[in-house]
Amino acid sequence: MHLPFCTPHRRRLGWRTSDVSNRRVSRPRRIAMDGASDRNAQEEERKGVDEADFANYFCTYEFLYHQKEMLEDAARMNAYHDAVMRNAKLFEGRVVLDVGCGSGILAIWSAQAGARRVYAVEATRMAEHAKVLVEHNKLENVVTVLEGTVESLELPEQVDIIISEWMGYFLLRESMLDSVLHARDKWLRPGGMLFPSHATLYLAPIVSEEHEQKVEQYDDELDSWEYFVQRMQQAYGVDFRVLSDRFENEQRKYFLQTARWADVKPGALLAEPCALVTLDLSTVTVEELKTLNCPFEIQISEEKFALHDLDGPEELQAFCGWFDVDFRGSSEEPAAIPIKLTTQPVEHASTHWGQQVFHVHPSHLCVPGDIFKGHLRIQRNRHNQRLLDVWMDYAHTTQQGDRRSHVRCFYIE
Amino acid sequence: MHLPFCTPHRRRLGWRTSDVSNRRVSRPRRIAMDGASDRNAQEEERKGVDEADFANYFCTYEFLYHQKEMLEDAARMNAYHDAVMRNAKLFEGRVVLDVGCGSGILAIWSAQAGARRVYAVEATRMAEHAKVLVEHNKLENVVTVLEGTVESLELPEQVDIIISEWMGYFLLRESMLDSVLHARDKWLRPGGMLFPSHATLYLAPIVSEEHEQKVEQYDDELDSWEYFVQRMQQAYGVDFRVLSDRFENEQRKYFLQTARWADVKPGALLAEPCALVTLDLSTVTVEELKTLNCPFEIQISEEKFALHDLDGPEELQAFCGWFDVDFRGSSEEPAAIPIKLTTQPVEHASTHWGQQVFHVHPSHLCVPGDIFKGHLRIQRNRHNQRLLDVWMDYAHTTQQGDRRSHVRCFYIE
Repeated sequence: MHLPFCTPHRRRLGWRTSDVSNRRVSRPRRIAMDGASDRNAQEEERKGVDEADFANYFCTYEFLYHQKEMLEDAARMNAYHDAVMRNAKLFEGRVVLDVGCGSGILAIWSAQAGARRVYAVEATRMAEHAKVLVEHNKLENVVTVLEGTVESLELPEQVDIIISEWMGYFLLRESMLDSVLHARDKWLRPGGMLFPSHATLYLAPIVSEEHEQKVEQYDDELDSWEYFVQRMQQAYGVDFRVLSDRFENEQRKYFLQTARWADVKPGALLAEPCALVTLDLSTVTVEELKTLNCPFEIQISEEKFALHDLDGPEELQAFCGWFDVDFRGSSEEPAAIPIKLTTQPVEHASTHWGQQVFHVHPSHLCVPGDIFKGHLRIQRNRHNQRLLDVWMDYAHTTQQGDRRSHVRCFYIE
Repeated sequence: MHLPFCTPHRRRLGWRTSDVSNRRVSRPRRIAMDGASDRNAQEEERKGVDEADFANYFCTYEFLYHQKEMLEDAARMNAYHDAVMRNAKLFEGRVVLDVGCGSGILAIWSAQAGARRVYAVEATRMAEHAKVLVEHNKLENVVTVLEGTVESLELPEQVDIIISEWMGYFLLRESMLDSVLHARDKWLRPGGMLFPSHATLYLAPIVSEEHEQKVEQYDDELDSWEYFVQRMQQAYGVDFRVLSDRFENEQRKYFLQTARWADVKPGALLAEPCALVTLDLSTVTVEELKTLNCPFEIQISEEKFALHDLDGPEELQAFCGWFDVDFRGSSEEPAAIPIKLTTQPVEHASTHWGQQVFHVHPSHLCVPGDIFKGHLRIQRNRHNQRLLDVWMDYAHTTQQGDRRSHVRCFYIE
């Protein structure tokens, strides 16, 4: 026995390989347990879930280092800052709820924009830092930091605006939107606003620099297993061959079916991106989020293809997914200046979200005009509702009319 | 929001930098929850702990890839194989319990050595693989694989031998020995044997190639924070300076106080290693393990010092810790051929445990004859009982009689 614990990763701004990250160790913070014996089983069950959720999820957000990384993401920061400050009129005299406030930056901006009262809710001990920051910036008369999950807290009043930065990889990873929707249904006054108000998912086919490497790593693991099986038999008299298929499945899942973080450049795209779905956050339900069925149709583009400067067919090595969120105010009170935060592939900038890349193995040879049409189904992983399983079911139709169907499963972890 | 989850790390045999590892995502396996409402709060509380323990700890052991890494550690494998096979007489006709059997290799060897019955207990779904391996190797009439924690399972009989590979970094990380001792007290017949039977911890002062890098990284983070504070004030009107001390503490803990995995070479040692404590596993208690107080006295060695080929003082940049375990049988039935598994620094080989390095900053300038004398206290981290806090309280006495005291705290994570 010797393995490191499940640990949140220490992501760096300069970090660009989805496989490599620095170690950072979790210090799961247990929710206080008193010994009362009259609590019912349901409460206890809930606590069991919270324990694991703290160990798995919240613990990643209790480091200033991680907050700093997010605060250094200029696209993220500028979009939220513009959304609040350029629409300060919407905030003036209003009551705001910041769900998962982290360092408290959005709550502080809301107060600076003129909010009458801001409730900043944070589940991790980052709440202590947020309190100090709020006081140091002399906003403690407006901003109240509350430590706990938004599901477990009571507020003294309804709110006019809910602001939150809840987006995970491919928008929905982390399932933190659930908490925002819970807060919306419980605390947002009728006609109140959500910041952001809308979210859209995109998909595009790409060539990927990492594709060959992933396939090679996978092949190397299988070769290494062969050697391992021989060695175990020879040196220790135990035949491991019966586990070969299981090992292969494990490695395929890890190297080929697990979506990778990447900073994709626009030149890698082989077609115009396809908008998969737009969520209106004022009406979408948690139930709807649990399984999203998104039809898509993608045609390989002459113009994009030409960038690759090839005569013959090009390899479609992966699909790549990302999201936008929009700050439009509400239908009753639209934002004077609607703001968009996009995580699309761009040339000389990127967000810390990057894009999620789904490697296709074997890859598709394609030429301009080829069509990829089908459905993408996003559903929560049944073992961990904060992770996602992505099913793709599509046909590749060539210009000659050749049509092949494919079904693939990916994991966003 | 965007962070990867707490994830077990994909350690590689060729992996040598303690900061960098490959991502591997946890798939915490929830213990089945039925809806019975009459369970009492204590049971539920226990389950809460189990949930977090699965999320944090056990999930790391359910990958064949990790098992393969451990199975490829030749020092580990050869020691256990020799301990069983060269002392097969001790196993003949006996009942054996393998605690945390993983792939089942130790259970299989025990059966091959002639055991009458082997119970192989494994908490993760690796138990399924172990069952398949046992059947494939035609030992299902001897080896029974049981999925669950050893604390929660009932056996039909007492056992003659408990075999287990429970050792974590610096021996005690993971606190898996608790489970072995629990099994010993509940299931081992009086006079039964433990494989291994003894364990010893060692400490030695070293020069470290990584030391300067760690100090530089720490300094870089503090510089980066200064720039960050200025940027947040200028661009977004929020003063983060009040969090500077907290950020510095977080970074000091991570870069300078967290023990690092390293493959230390013998030439790095500045003194003979000091044996801190030897545990007799047949008698030690969980209570005793919770806090170990280990006196040490280390004298900088002329011979070791000479290896560094310097005229002036040398820097003691770190202390380095490791362990041995011994397979001696029991006092009633000593092993005919006692076997030792050591994780000490060696020139051309190493174990996957490596050594744990505790960086000393600022470092100590020392010359041969200098003495470092004090205590090392190993205690469980109060937030996660599988991690360790290590306190060092010692005096550095030079040959001129100059004496300085130091107290340092480290974390094994």
